Amino acid sequence: MTSKAAAHSPVDKFTFGLWTVGWQARDPFGDATRPPLDPVEIVQRLAELGAYGVTFHDDDLIPFGSDDAARQQHIARFRKALAATGMKVPMATTNLFTHPVFKDGAFTSNDRAVRRFALRKVMRNLDLAVELGAETYVCWGGREGTEYDCSKDVRVALDRLREAFNVLGTYCKDRGYRIRFAIEPKPNEPRGDILLPTIGHALAFIDTLEHKELVGLNPEVGHEQMAGLNFVHGIAQALWHKKLFHIDLNGQRGIKYDQDLVFGHGDLVSAFFLVDLLESAGYDGPRHFDYKPSRTEDFEGVWASAAANMRMYRLLRDRAAKFQKDPEVVAAKRAARLPDLAQTTLAPGETCADLLRDRSAFETFDANAHGSRGCGFVRLHQLALEHLLGAR
Amino acid sequence: MTSKAAAHSPVDKFTFGLWTVGWQARDPFGDATRPPLDPVEIVQRLAELGAYGVTFHDDDLIPFGSDDAARQQHIARFRKALAATGMKVPMATTNLFTHPVFKDGAFTSNDRAVRRFALRKVMRNLDLAVELGAETYVCWGGREGTEYDCSKDVRVALDRLREAFNVLGTYCKDRGYRIRFAIEPKPNEPRGDILLPTIGHALAFIDTLEHKELVGLNPEVGHEQMAGLNFVHGIAQALWHKKLFHIDLNGQRGIKYDQDLVFGHGDLVSAFFLVDLLESAGYDGPRHFDYKPSRTEDFEGVWASAAANMRMYRLLRDRAAKFQKDPEVVAAKRAARLPDLAQTTLAPGETCADLLRDRSAFETFDANAHGSRGCGFVRLHQLALEHLLGAR
Amino acid sequence: MTSKAAAHSPVDKFTFGLWTVGWQARDPFGDATRPPLDPVEIVQRLAELGAYGVTFHDDDLIPFGSDDAARQQHIARFRKALAATGMKVPMATTNLFTHPVFKDGAFTSNDRAVRRFALRKVMRNLDLAVELGAETYVCWGGREGTEYDCSKDVRVALDRLREAFNVLGTYCKDRGYRIRFAIEPKPNEPRGDILLPTIGHALAFIDTLEHKELVGLNPEVGHEQMAGLNFVHGIAQALWHKKLFHIDLNGQRGIKYDQDLVFGHGDLVSAFFLVDLLESAGYDGPRHFDYKPSRTEDFEGVWASAAANMRMYRLLRDRAAKFQKDPEVVAAKRAARLPDLAQTTLAPGETCADLLRDRSAFETFDANAHGSRGCGFVRLHQLALEHLLGAR
Amino acid sequence: MTSKAAAHSPVDKFTFGLWTVGWQARDPFGDATRPPLDPVEIVQRLAELGAYGVTFHDDDLIPFGSDDAARQQHIARFRKALAATGMKVPMATTNLFTHPVFKDGAFTSNDRAVRRFALRKVMRNLDLAVELGAETYVCWGGREGTEYDCSKDVRVALDRLREAFNVLGTYCKDRGYRIRFAIEPKPNEPRGDILLPTIGHALAFIDTLEHKELVGLNPEVGHEQMAGLNFVHGIAQALWHKKLFHIDLNGQRGIKYDQDLVFGHGDLVSAFFLVDLLESAGYDGPRHFDYKPSRTEDFEGVWASAAANMRMYRLLRDRAAKFQKDPEVVAAKRAARLPDLAQTTLAPGETCADLLRDRSAFETFDANAHGSRGCGFVRLHQLALEHLLGAR
Repeated sequence: MTSKAAAHSPVDKFTFGLWTVGWQARDPFGDATRPPLDPVEIVQRLAELGAYGVTFHDDDLIPFGSDDAARQQHIARFRKALAATGMKVPMATTNLFTHPVFKDGAFTSNDRAVRRFALRKVMRNLDLAVELGAETYVCWGGREGTEYDCSKDVRVALDRLREAFNVLGTYCKDRGYRIRFAIEPKPNEPRGDILLPTIGHALAFIDTLEHKELVGLNPEVGHEQMAGLNFVHGIAQALWHKKLFHIDLNGQRGIKYDQDLVFGHGDLVSAFFLVDLLESAGYDGPRHFDYKPSRTEDFEGVWASAAANMRMYRLLRDRAAKFQKDPEVVAAKRAARLPDLAQTTLAPGETCADLLRDRSAFETFDANAHGSRGCGFVRLHQLALEHLLGAR
Repeated sequence: MTSKAAAHSPVDKFTFGLWTVGWQARDPFGDATRPPLDPVEIVQRLAELGAYGVTFHDDDLIPFGSDDAARQQHIARFRKALAATGMKVPMATTNLFTHPVFKDGAFTSNDRAVRRFALRKVMRNLDLAVELGAETYVCWGGREGTEYDCSKDVRVALDRLREAFNVLGTYCKDRGYRIRFAIEPKPNEPRGDILLPTIGHALAFIDTLEHKELVGLNPEVGHEQMAGLNFVHGIAQALWHKKLFHIDLNGQRGIKYDQDLVFGHGDLVSAFFLVDLLESAGYDGPRHFDYKPSRTEDFEGVWASAAANMRMYRLLRDRAAKFQKDPEVVAAKRAARLPDLAQTTLAPGETCADLLRDRSAFETFDANAHGSRGCGFVRLHQLALEHLLGAR
Repeated sequence: MTSKAAAHSPVDKFTFGLWTVGWQARDPFGDATRPPLDPVEIVQRLAELGAYGVTFHDDDLIPFGSDDAARQQHIARFRKALAATGMKVPMATTNLFTHPVFKDGAFTSNDRAVRRFALRKVMRNLDLAVELGAETYVCWGGREGTEYDCSKDVRVALDRLREAFNVLGTYCKDRGYRIRFAIEPKPNEPRGDILLPTIGHALAFIDTLEHKELVGLNPEVGHEQMAGLNFVHGIAQALWHKKLFHIDLNGQRGIKYDQDLVFGHGDLVSAFFLVDLLESAGYDGPRHFDYKPSRTEDFEGVWASAAANMRMYRLLRDRAAKFQKDPEVVAAKRAARLPDLAQTTLAPGETCADLLRDRSAFETFDANAHGSRGCGFVRLHQLALEHLLGAR
Repeated sequence: MTSKAAAHSPVDKFTFGLWTVGWQARDPFGDATRPPLDPVEIVQRLAELGAYGVTFHDDDLIPFGSDDAARQQHIARFRKALAATGMKVPMATTNLFTHPVFKDGAFTSNDRAVRRFALRKVMRNLDLAVELGAETYVCWGGREGTEYDCSKDVRVALDRLREAFNVLGTYCKDRGYRIRFAIEPKPNEPRGDILLPTIGHALAFIDTLEHKELVGLNPEVGHEQMAGLNFVHGIAQALWHKKLFHIDLNGQRGIKYDQDLVFGHGDLVSAFFLVDLLESAGYDGPRHFDYKPSRTEDFEGVWASAAANMRMYRLLRDRAAKFQKDPEVVAAKRAARLPDLAQTTLAPGETCADLLRDRSAFETFDANAHGSRGCGFVRLHQLALEHLLGAR
């Protein structure tokens, strides 16, 4: 197997959570349709499929409540598989949602003992994450929320959430860890409403933290789309704030329960523009697939779906590259005045007083003439779709 | 009419936009069902109904393209009505969406001349707003957005949006204006996707501004609910960031087109908890109704709907006050451990090292015991609803 | 306990599924937070709370795969509890969704052997339902659907669904069963898209059945609201088609995952108008609560939530009765011309030719005059809300 | 121009409403950005672009309130343009929504005089439609609905709606018209909730009509998607009921206001499977584009967007044809057991008694074995997407 490790040098940073292909397909109305997968097997199979690495929740690797001996054994087996395959662990995270103890949240549970336990659980897995070389530590607060507006004072809950990130930031600084946190927003499910429901809410929250430089985002395609929000816009804003630390790629078909489909199997056009944005913005973190192989599938389908994620990303990347290089597209962008937007509205050095003196800006501005100019957006979009369809 | 002005001293800061009761009821599929209302009549009628003040877009008061003489005349008549009734103008805003010139946005139009015109239009109305005593200047960027992800680089658009707020902040500082800006987020309509789609996105954006202390939020009930987000949670987060500068109250029935119903005629339970939050948080700004009297109504219905907004707010405030004082509610909150959430998770002075040493926090913590404790949320919510229904 | 049975004569036909209060609170991201409840205990507790009866899926009462001896024992214990408490079983249903065998549907599985098994499973439980006195047999086809449009030809699937209902109808007729079927529509979850997604689609489907008189609807509040549809309108249409055979009452807060909150804990205003409609239409079937006690609650919360369902229904019924009797409401309805709608548009005996000859209908009709009349809807709605709030 | 008429023989039945390219781009927050287009010019331009025909609302062609002389002149000019270009008019419809008189509906207005006027307005335009050779008469009841559940008894409103269709059916039969009606469902906008909100509700309603054979559906892509429903499933059910009389193709991006984008510019994957279904089902009616050229566009953009609709349909049709013929797809469908679904669940002649006797159907059926079989849906879907992307 050493030879395979040597051979394993994927150009693309495609990563998968242990919990993705390992999902047993239990849903709110149905029992598991697949047996558990051994993390070691997951590492091997994903390596064979050409993935760059794997990620994990503490409890994916080490069942909740394991004693230290069992824990060490699980870790040792995992390390060995990593070494054998050359697979990386660029990210890890904590399961703060499965056990009943987290039913009212972890960092914002109304039960202080639960909050303390949650912090300890994170700290413990942070140590392991760092040991395994992870650079990003994802925090999805899926249970931090409410079903009833009277069950929690959200302002107080945000105080506790801030406290938790301040404590964890301090912990990492104290220990000299070079890991960064990435908050993963979600609007609802499993709670009626979750705190920090969107990219925007999480970005605003981060700005209030003591160690804000350590904290960024891990947005997930489906989570923003569950609120009907434009994921490409969200990622653009996250990039603009320099806070896109990690990304969860998957598919969702509109505002409904969290579907976690294969990347590109949800809103295909949005996926195309997302890949276009990530590539053109030079995002260099992992392309992390946080999806669930459909409950209808057996293991053959599981591995086919894992491969489909990577295939879709590559296909969309190729299409996007050709779209950007097409001279007709370049001309259509110019016609749509996209380059104009990059010019500052005030000239360099221009003051408010200067602007007020510029009669062409207001007094003699011909609003009707400017209002009747066509923007050329539909033609540009049609060009994009034809590239997506491989029709140019 | 002087006597009426003297008599006009409303205890509640209920305000209405000229464009609300003045809406002529033109919709995407239908012509106006009501004739225009004179702003002077609006001021008089709202004063009689007990409102505290009115708000306006520049073009509500002074038709787009009016010359200076006409402009002064419109302003003079308006001032006279205000003086006669004692009505205040606590807020003003700019119409950057009706004229075709803004079809691709104002501050983020791909056409630089439009961006400059937009800034001048705002500056001009800012002067008037300050003259009329307004303390808040609302900015709804309803046209700043896209239908197609290729039609605008959102990062560049955010640069332009930041530039605009930086220029406007400087303008106010230069002139010594004491007015503050309040950004009004909206996810979509009239654009396919609007920039700064939610309270969260706008809060994050504000943090990047030069004069960030001058800029806060004007969240609108229906706008967050159009994304399926919890408005009470959103307002709580805005308050937590100390950025609730103003608020737009109205009603929306779920994820669909922007309905602008009477406050309380949308999601009634959310309206109840919203009033409860505003009152208990000591929010002291105007309760601004940004609604549209249904297109089915004549003027009698218009004024009845205006009165209904205020009636609903007062009813909900009364119900909320009784809810908070009910000893059974206080006990139910305690049982649900709400006071526990106000305790810091780490004890005062406790360090990470201390927490790690606390074996009760992890090693001996009984997750199953804590996980089986009931939270008591349903009972608390039922008490809230019974107060809302006037059944206790 | 005999005395309790004698005492048990509830005026309201409130019923609960065994799976509602018995839900162990396992969700897609979390383990069960409550132990199982014995059906016998459920019957006893619900009887004490004043319920009229219970309903069940076959597998709620008799675990999947039980042998005949075990099955008889489960049934015998259940019967005894019913007899002891006087509780009725007005409805039963089949679990065609939990076991992996149904992962691609039951009546429309691509696997014919699964379809045959599903029919047999229903037939078997139909026998028991009839034995226990049930008058309604609910069919929720939660797994009949797709995630991918290519995975099933929907027209062929509808052929199979029709075949299944034809077979089951024949089975009941052959056996002389007096039970009727009630289809329960749902748009999605657990499948990406479910067949017969709304009340409308199911009504249309029923019209194609051989024994259509035996098949009606069991609409569920949250299911229609998950598609943003107006549940009161849906129930009105179901009543209009004489197909409201049964109803599932619960609460949902907008378009998201299926929440199954307490009735009235979702869209309160819609719940009010629903109760108003059911009562005024003389619906005399059970008021069946198909809800899930929140995962945060222990058994105390479970029983409190069960009681809350009944309390909410009664409160809303009282409010609705007063609303209907208020003379001001009667006058407001007249002003809004509601009685006019009950008049036929053509006079009795009037023909198309007569209508064409009536110049007042077109040639001399004053569209502007009629268009400017106010409808008076906002005032009427405000009166309704004040009745709901107990404020009149 | 005679030569052009001769040359005009489009193989595809692509049609456009006069109101589509002719939309002046007035929206709820903005004024028109384009001047009106002469219907004659529309006919000419669409003919040049290769369309098969045009469709119209009465008021598109003849402004509301025109006298008879003006009316005849408008019709004459239109006829001349049709003759000159060879364009057909396969469908017509009535505007029962723009004028204030319809603010509370047309066939279900609480004002009986409005209901009678509406019937006459339809009858008048039916005569013209038949004269112009239309085979389908579309009825979109966009104003038949409510904002408040108390403003209309929906059961009574459905009585009026049924009455209207019965009268109109009789009218057509009396006159010997060979035209058929096609109801166009929509869930909301411009009313809070519209009657017959989905394909399903309309299908069920049709079954109650006197002349039900004359009435079918005109489903619109965006309208079903505004309720989060699967349009392909809806069309499949409409075809199954033999009620797909006409279809409105356009684009929508999720649950929000009605966007009316170019066909294929909304949910692209759904558009692909829709074209696949229409073509494979042998639907032979017009492919009618009911879209709105984006408000940002000038006339160049208008015509580019018109062409884009047809281009997208043709591209998707080509992709779908290749998808169906690919032997790997055929094999994947077999592996996913799609052909099995076409087999009846009971064997020909098999009775319930036979099924009960078949021990393999239940007693010896191995649920676990069948439950563990993979369905192969993800692989099939990936093949479909690769065909859509032109990547195979």
